[in-house]
Amino acid sequence: MNLRIPGPTPCPPEVLAAMSRPMVDHRGPEMAALILRTAPRLKSAFQTKNDVLIVTTSGTGGLESAVVNTLSPGDHVLSVSIGNFGERLAQIATAFGAVVTKLPFENGRAADPERVADALRADPALKAVLITHNETSTGVTNPLEALAAAVRPSGALVIVDAVSSLSSIPVKVDAWGLDVVVSGSQKGWMLPPGLAFVALSERAWEASKTATMPRFYFDLAKTRDAQAKGQTPWTPALSIYFALDVALDMLEAEGWEQVYARHQVCADLTRAGVKRLGLELLADQRFASNTVTAVKAPQGMDVSLLRKTLREQHGVVVGGGQAELTGKIFRIGHLGLVQEDDIKATLDALEAALPVAGFRPAVATV
Amino acid sequence: MNLRIPGPTPCPPEVLAAMSRPMVDHRGPEMAALILRTAPRLKSAFQTKNDVLIVTTSGTGGLESAVVNTLSPGDHVLSVSIGNFGERLAQIATAFGAVVTKLPFENGRAADPERVADALRADPALKAVLITHNETSTGVTNPLEALAAAVRPSGALVIVDAVSSLSSIPVKVDAWGLDVVVSGSQKGWMLPPGLAFVALSERAWEASKTATMPRFYFDLAKTRDAQAKGQTPWTPALSIYFALDVALDMLEAEGWEQVYARHQVCADLTRAGVKRLGLELLADQRFASNTVTAVKAPQGMDVSLLRKTLREQHGVVVGGGQAELTGKIFRIGHLGLVQEDDIKATLDALEAALPVAGFRPAVATV
Repeated sequence: MNLRIPGPTPCPPEVLAAMSRPMVDHRGPEMAALILRTAPRLKSAFQTKNDVLIVTTSGTGGLESAVVNTLSPGDHVLSVSIGNFGERLAQIATAFGAVVTKLPFENGRAADPERVADALRADPALKAVLITHNETSTGVTNPLEALAAAVRPSGALVIVDAVSSLSSIPVKVDAWGLDVVVSGSQKGWMLPPGLAFVALSERAWEASKTATMPRFYFDLAKTRDAQAKGQTPWTPALSIYFALDVALDMLEAEGWEQVYARHQVCADLTRAGVKRLGLELLADQRFASNTVTAVKAPQGMDVSLLRKTLREQHGVVVGGGQAELTGKIFRIGHLGLVQEDDIKATLDALEAALPVAGFRPAVATV
Repeated sequence: MNLRIPGPTPCPPEVLAAMSRPMVDHRGPEMAALILRTAPRLKSAFQTKNDVLIVTTSGTGGLESAVVNTLSPGDHVLSVSIGNFGERLAQIATAFGAVVTKLPFENGRAADPERVADALRADPALKAVLITHNETSTGVTNPLEALAAAVRPSGALVIVDAVSSLSSIPVKVDAWGLDVVVSGSQKGWMLPPGLAFVALSERAWEASKTATMPRFYFDLAKTRDAQAKGQTPWTPALSIYFALDVALDMLEAEGWEQVYARHQVCADLTRAGVKRLGLELLADQRFASNTVTAVKAPQGMDVSLLRKTLREQHGVVVGGGQAELTGKIFRIGHLGLVQEDDIKATLDALEAALPVAGFRPAVATV
């Protein structure tokens, strides 16, 4: 199968092999060595000098940890949402009692730093801004550096969902002044789902001291203190830690800059190929994501039938639309373990499958 | 390695092989089929007609889900604690705003149903009782049926940590009237850590409708609704689901009654062997656990040195004591993938290692 959804992504054979290693004592010397060897290597990907914490949960759990460790019920929070995952982050903050002001942008558009700055000026009580770096549901990458710069004068914390960007698209956590940044193992990391990675700035740790949202499993201070000793507060998903060690070897051997460049190449190839077939992208081209491309379904095209045909006739799995975009778009993932040949095969399959789903491709040569 | 800690437990080769299967679309037909095939099979182990929910988290996250889905801040809760994990459950309830009354029992003792009934009579406002079925830190299995019966007249919810018992020791969730019951994949299930299993009674679901403790990632109503459609609310730890399917095949092929009997045999063998060496058990013999045996360190014995010698010289990994029991006990896990030969090898190694750690075994023949 050519798994071309925006996560879970395909895993290299070496990573899958590590997943099948026998269990060890999670409090013993092998695991302590693994944690102390692995966690510091995450800093390069996060471009931070601070600890990157590993939590046994999915990306959504990582986002919950970001919110509940830094905020208190009643805190004013600005939700800068450009799609489904932006909404989810706002829902988390609301569930834990934050007073959330929504600043939504149309599907396919990036957030506008000017409007973020305006919203912050309108409510000086805003304590934090929730930003999705890469919106998996629409294939848009926000201009995170500019957005963070727009927040900075207000003093609000910048809480970032980088689940589907970090490790595939540069995220300069320290240089851009990001306070909490979350990624997830099943995206660019070439790992199965089950671990979230969370980095906190000094300011975020300071905020955590007075943040009163209740937390136990997701108490990151406990994780930080344990991780410093090669431990975890609760039993971790050992297998994915084993695999992380191997995936980091591979990503580091390639080099992070080359990893980002490869994602750029595959994304460019995807976008050009889709457009050559006569299809339109959902994303504003200036902010099109290097990890996922959302393609508009032309009038009369059956997205379900397209996905079924791709899967059953061509062994290519693409994503559908989420929420109100269901049936209106399909999404091609190009992150993690991805090479140009995977994209070419996807485009060939797409060209063959489109007529079955009611659309005649514009050009036969891909 | 003969991994004889009370979890993570060794996994069969077939289970480890399943851990290395390639990723699939977590919203696609293979995963839906897997969820719809697997989740119902958990009911036999839980001895319940209700849904058993699968959550991507460790056992502690499963316990948090049990608390936050059924209680509200300010609710009066009785914590029946017989050790470290009982304390943890109380800490979770406290962190989320419950008013917790503690009814602790000495390390090594089981909880007394009479005293539980007394505590409930003393505070008619008690909304729930937190009970550890099998206390991993002391090797004690509570008389859960009697404890639940003692709670019943009060109408309080019975919330049970069965992380290290369920699947190895019978837990009759429906017959005993248990309201929320939690287990964890890395115990008797012969799986790596990363999944928790949670069953809720009708009463618990009813309570969840008015329970106001904040929850998002651990919102079990979302999990229930998604699972009924072969979905999960957030990206699940696919690999452990693959492995669960295989482990259930193996456990069902053996038969649950035989699985329980095998644990009884291995536990009896462990206890008899340890006593024959002249050592004492921590647990009140009437309530000694069939999944873990806690052994008292005699005066002058160095537990660290014993564990190190067992590991390095004999390839046997046993657990130490937790919290105030550190250095005072060691613990032998006999749950999940365990046969008599594993226990005999452990006892042989123990006999050889004890003199190194400062204790002369009573009898040379094991």
